[in-house]
Parts: sequence; structure tokens; C-alpha cells
Amino acid sequence: MNTNNILIIGAGRSSSVLISYMLNHAKELHASVTVADADLELAQQKINKHAAGKALQLDITNATALAKAIKNSTIVVSMLPAHLHTSVAINCLQLKKNLITASYISPEMKALNDDVKKAGLLFINECGLDPGIDHMSAMKIIDHLHAQKATITSFKSYCGGLVAPQCNDNPWGYKFSWNPRNVILAGQATAKYLLNGKVKYINYTNLFAEAEQLNIKKLGNFDVYANRDSLSYIVPYGLTKAQTVVRGTMREKNYCKAWNVLVQLGLTDDSFVIEEANKMRVVDFTQSFLRDITLANFIKKCGHNSTSQVSKMIAWLDLESTAKLKTTKGTPAQILQSLLEVKWKLNKTDLDRIVMHHAFEYTLKGKKYNLQSSLARIGTNQIHTAMAETVGLPLAIATKLCLQGKFGKTTGVHMPTIPVLYNPILAELNEVFGMEFTETVSEIV
Amino acid sequence: MNTNNILIIGAGRSSSVLISYMLNHAKELHASVTVADADLELAQQKINKHAAGKALQLDITNATALAKAIKNSTIVVSMLPAHLHTSVAINCLQLKKNLITASYISPEMKALNDDVKKAGLLFINECGLDPGIDHMSAMKIIDHLHAQKATITSFKSYCGGLVAPQCNDNPWGYKFSWNPRNVILAGQATAKYLLNGKVKYINYTNLFAEAEQLNIKKLGNFDVYANRDSLSYIVPYGLTKAQTVVRGTMREKNYCKAWNVLVQLGLTDDSFVIEEANKMRVVDFTQSFLRDITLANFIKKCGHNSTSQVSKMIAWLDLESTAKLKTTKGTPAQILQSLLEVKWKLNKTDLDRIVMHHAFEYTLKGKKYNLQSSLARIGTNQIHTAMAETVGLPLAIATKLCLQGKFGKTTGVHMPTIPVLYNPILAELNEVFGMEFTETVSEIV
Repeated sequence: MNTNNILIIGAGRSSSVLISYMLNHAKELHASVTVADADLELAQQKINKHAAGKALQLDITNATALAKAIKNSTIVVSMLPAHLHTSVAINCLQLKKNLITASYISPEMKALNDDVKKAGLLFINECGLDPGIDHMSAMKIIDHLHAQKATITSFKSYCGGLVAPQCNDNPWGYKFSWNPRNVILAGQATAKYLLNGKVKYINYTNLFAEAEQLNIKKLGNFDVYANRDSLSYIVPYGLTKAQTVVRGTMREKNYCKAWNVLVQLGLTDDSFVIEEANKMRVVDFTQSFLRDITLANFIKKCGHNSTSQVSKMIAWLDLESTAKLKTTKGTPAQILQSLLEVKWKLNKTDLDRIVMHHAFEYTLKGKKYNLQSSLARIGTNQIHTAMAETVGLPLAIATKLCLQGKFGKTTGVHMPTIPVLYNPILAELNEVFGMEFTETVSEIV
Repeated sequence: MNTNNILIIGAGRSSSVLISYMLNHAKELHASVTVADADLELAQQKINKHAAGKALQLDITNATALAKAIKNSTIVVSMLPAHLHTSVAINCLQLKKNLITASYISPEMKALNDDVKKAGLLFINECGLDPGIDHMSAMKIIDHLHAQKATITSFKSYCGGLVAPQCNDNPWGYKFSWNPRNVILAGQATAKYLLNGKVKYINYTNLFAEAEQLNIKKLGNFDVYANRDSLSYIVPYGLTKAQTVVRGTMREKNYCKAWNVLVQLGLTDDSFVIEEANKMRVVDFTQSFLRDITLANFIKKCGHNSTSQVSKMIAWLDLESTAKLKTTKGTPAQILQSLLEVKWKLNKTDLDRIVMHHAFEYTLKGKKYNLQSSLARIGTNQIHTAMAETVGLPLAIATKLCLQGKFGKTTGVHMPTIPVLYNPILAELNEVFGMEFTETVSEIV
């Protein structure tokens, strides 16, 4: 008889690997797996008639239905967008269920910490890829260095969802392996980080223009740009002695320069709606952002001549096409997304790749060192993408270990930045799924 | 005995001229004037013991108190920020009172139109300077041209709150004569307008860089930039045949280029809060936006060499001062505002100036014409600024005329774009207060 019931809320693209894993481990966990989604068919499809699986049609705005689903579960994994987690979390607290998510901890989630502790519960957040594996792999190194009495002076960490090199057949080196909207809107929140002892606030206008180059041995040349608020991780990561702390995003070389042209043009603007967009041609859309200059001259004004790689990248997007827009109405960002979803489609035979890279500088016994740690993973196919695996597996493993009581007496609202959480999760990712970081250490002389 | 009671909600800087006018006309209108504000002392101060005046302490979030104040009135003038008008408007509708405001018509206000009409009421909005006098003066010309069967092909309208030329003693040619926060955040909503038959969306990154030059005879050289959504005025203004429709803001020459440096730097960012800002020096604040470049080099990167006027303007702001910031915590925009409030203070002996300019192109009987219409007004003193007068007087006159029944059977939610409203208001502004537009017409050959 099943004593456990794992409730997974959200059956979207990001849940596939998670659901497979939980179904595969159902027997071992004496568990049934309930997949709840507004779209019952989607939930059924993901379960694929597995004996341990159960599909549930759930409208999460229906408070009674949500409470009932959570009440009937042993543990809850929420794959909802971050702002929808709050009602799930409050139900989990009231009904005494542990909760696992891949989302950034919101102020509302953070505020539950004391109550979650008092209830003897564990809410693990930021437990996917980025945030998730980045926290775990970085903290393992940080804790190890601190145990050796090293002083970490610089920490830079980047992650990118990219296309596998053998499937990289467009000048951007990019295809969508994840939520396209997040890619379009990336960087709109001012980036905050620490550089050489100084706090830096880099706004959207300068962010992509100031992207840095990163060469990773055997993996290639990348663009990297700071993302969100790196300052907020200084204390949780124990990096209070570091002069530089940056977390960011990785793209193929030249991506940021070219993307910056679209940003400067205003195509990523999400602040207003263009009505009757489908009456416009693509070229009309593009020209509506150009006051009295051609696109070619605008690109030149951004510092790229007509034979440059950036000009080729922009040209490849066909932004001066005379085809009609297909979006009925939408923000510029939504219209740009619809255009890029065609151009940057991950085709059936395409594989994706995720790359993660940490770079540390530290002093130990009077000497200065550089430590680099990298993970690259290529997807299996279009469903089991590297992105779906690296997001889904840490969540799935955390859920299993939590059910098995492997996190001991840990309670409260957490990220996986503590050894009791990251050690067993990283161990299974490495041993069972072959997710191994390549580490090099060299003395800085 | 007073049969009327005029309720003015909000006793701030913008209400001074309005309150004076209403008190001066109280006897003629058989009216008392109630000035309601959260700050009772401020309301008392504005009334200055006038026999017809009454100060009322009013917390507008107190629904009972707000309803009572409105119930006791004959007509309501709301000087609250736009988003607070809604509760006032709903009370006015329920209690059958006419309402006058200087704010842009919000979607919520617009939605009341049918009910306001059914109740036989008149809600006049956008009845200050800009929006306000701009609507009235432009519509008077538009209606006149249309009556002559002219076709208007181009309409550009600009307004600026500036400093009087004789008091212009800083390289920016600017001092705050109005809400500083609005000046700091100006242009952050994407500008939307019609140019040569094409819709243009110019985002914040490009807006100030693309400011145009405007020379107005006898008044000087100005920078002008498009502001907010000009497209939404095409139908209300009856400009459906025009190829160009732009409404915008006017500043002294070079202002926009220099302001653009601050925008590009990120100093006008209002999206995040810097905690413990008062531990920073001004120079630290500035450098936090510069990744690896000096301010001088950043200005150069923006296209201005070290001896340029723009460099002088930025230098005059002392953004590399070693003085501590006085703001405890705040967004970059709030901190910049606190710095500029010192630099751009309208001193006791300073006078302000408002300038408004309309430029039309139209065809009439096969010929093409250019019509320019300008208003310039210099303030009387620091309280009776040109800004306070040009915002307060149209509101005050509209309130008086409404009480006197001079708007006939006009009902509904309006801007003063119809003759029954703009004709008598403009007439008094001109005849009593000497606000006269200078008009020139020339044939385009």
C-alpha cells in the first residue's frame, strides 16, 4: 500500500523530467504521484498511464480545491510561477506538508521562515539549475575552501541554457530551450554586484554593452553579463571577505553585442501594448522604433559596421521582412518573442546544452589561487533537454530525499546552500546522472 | 447667505493660486471655500483667515470623512495625485456633485462617463496648464481651421516649466518650479507619436538623445522631446488627417543632451532602493553606476568632449563631490532628486517662466500654411509662480463658470477640448490675466 503521495503542481515543459523521476521512484518510495494542472490532458499525458500516477485537474485559484489536493499529499512540489507559490506555501504550512520549488525565494516566502520552523517543516526553494545547482556546486567549493582556512577574494558564477555545438546552425548560437519570455526580458531589473570592493548598479541600457568575454577550456568562448541582485548572496554564501561577487548569465560569443542592438532599439519594451499589431508588417514594427534613421544606420550608430558579425546576426532575424505580424496585439517584447520563436526554434533533431562556470580567487597560507569549476551537459532529445534535466533532477532528488528523511532535522525556508541539503543532491546528480564539474586550480603568480 | 460651498481637496504648492482665486470670487459666487488637506495647518495657512474660507483636516483614505466633506459641498476641485481621484470621483457621482481636476483622465475616470452623463453631472479633467491650456489653445485653432475647411497635416505642441531668462544663472537653464519627482522620472514611459504618417515608439534610451531643436521667435532656442502618448489625442483633437502629431516637453537648449548622460548612467533608475545611502559619498553613488570607466570618459562615450557644454553642465552638478549623501535610503532617482533640489532650487528672488508652443501645418484652398502659436509667461514671485498661475487659473475659472452654469447642458467626463468649455476659460485667461498667445501664419512655398 502507498503510504506517501507526492503532489506535483504544474505539468508544463519544465516538469517532464521531474515527473518521470518521481514515477520511476514511486515503488521505492511507497508513493503515488499526483500531477495537478489546469489542463487535465497535459497532466495525463505526462503520467502516460503509469500505474503509480494520477492526473488531477486543478485550478489553483480555487482555494478549496487547492487545499484539498495539498491535504491529500505527503509532500508538494510546486512548478508554478514564483508569484503563485505563496498560496501553495501557506496551505503547506497550515496542513503540515513539506514543499519543494525551483523559484527564487520571494519576500512572502521568506516571511514564512519562523512559522515553517515552528511547524517542523522544510521548504526548499531555488532547487533547480539556476538557481539550484549553481548554489549547491558553489557552496560545496566555498565550504571546502573555508574549512581549509582559505580567504575567498573573488567569486564569479555564470550559467547559460545554450544549443549543443553540433546543432549550432545560426549566427546567434542560440535557440530557445526554456521559457522564451524570460530570455526576451532578461536583464531588465538593474544588475547589482560587487566589483573590486565597490558596489555596482548596472542598468539595462549598459548591461549588454558591458558584457565580458569568458573563455572556458574545452567549452569555448562566451559572453557573460551580470544578472539580478548578486549582492543578496554575499551573506548566504559566506563571501563577506570577497571584493568581487558576480552571478550572471552566459551566451555564445557576440550574442550580447547583437542583443544590445535590439534593446537599444526598444524591441524588448514590455511596458505598453501595440493594438492591431497584425495589421503591421515586420518591417513596419521595426521602423516604428526608428525615428529618422534606417536599421542599418542604427546598427552602425551602435558601433557595428555593415560587414560586422553583429550586422549579420541582426540581418538573419529578418526584421525588415514584409510579412505580416502574426501577433494580434502585444507589447514590443511579446511581438519580438513571437518572431524569435520561429527563428530560434529548437528543432526536432536539435539538442540543447547547459554550461555552468564558477571562477574563484582565494588566498591560502600566503599564496593566491584561481579555481575554475565547470559543468557542461548536452540534452538527450527535445523532451529530455539538458535544461529540463538540470532543473528537474535536483528538484526530484530533493523530493525523494526529503520523503526518505535524509535531510535530518533541518526545518525552515531554505535554498540548498547548506551541506545537509547540497551534499546528497550533488552526490546523486554526479553518481547516477553523471553531472560532474571539472575543476582546475592554479596559483596566481 | 452662502448658497454654494466649493471644496478644494489638497492644499499643496499647486493649489495656492486656485485657492486665492476662489476666495476672491467667493462673495460674487455666494460661496464659502473649504480647503481640505491631511495637514490642517497647511490648509489654514492657504486660507489666511479669509472670511469665506474654512480649513478642514481630511484623511482621504477615511471613506466616511471623504463622503461627508463632498456631501457638504456644491462643487469639488481635486488636486490629489491622479490615482487618488477615483474615490473622489465615485463619491461625486453618488452625491451628485460636479468635479474639476488637472490630471490626465485615467481609465477608471473614463469608465465613469456614462454614469456621469446619466446623473447630469460634469467632470472636467486635464484642466491645468499641460494638460489644460495646451488642449484649449490648440483646440481653438483646430476648430477655427476646420471651420474654414482647412486640412491639418501636422501638429506639434510643446510646453515647458522653465526659469525666467533674467534669473537663468546655471548652465542647465533649469530650476524646479514644479514637482521635482516628475522632472526626474520624465520620459520613462515610452513616447508614442505619429511622424510623417508612421507611428513611432521611442523608448527612454533614445528619447533624450533624439530631442529636437526648436527656435521660437523672441523667446529663444529650446530642446523639445516627445512625451507620453500623443497617439491618444489624434481622435479627440480631430486630427485624423494629420501625418504628424506630437505633444512634448520643452527645455532650454542642451538640456536634453546633458540629461541623457544621467539617464544613460542609470541615475534616474527608480526600480530599486539603495539602503544606507547616507553612508555613501556623492562620488561613491556616481561611481556605483560606472563599471570600469571614469565619469569623464563616460561623458565622452556619450559623444561629448571635455570642453563641451554638456561636460560643463555635468561638472556643475558636482557628481564627484566627496560630501556624504543626505538621503537615508532611496532609489537612484530619489537620491538624484535630493542632489538636484539643492542645485536647481528656485531661490527667493528667482522667477519662473512657462513657455507653450503649437506648430501647425495645414492646407487651405490648395495652399500650404504654417501656423505658430506661442505663450510665454513669467511668474510674479516664488508663490505666484507662472507655473502655479497657469495650472491654478484654468481650474479656478472652470470651477467658477461651472458654478455659474456657464457650461450649459454639458455633461459627462471631459477634457476642455470642446468650445463650450475652452472658449469662456480662454477668454478670461486672456482678458483678465493677460495670457495671450502670439500667432503667426506663413505660407509654405
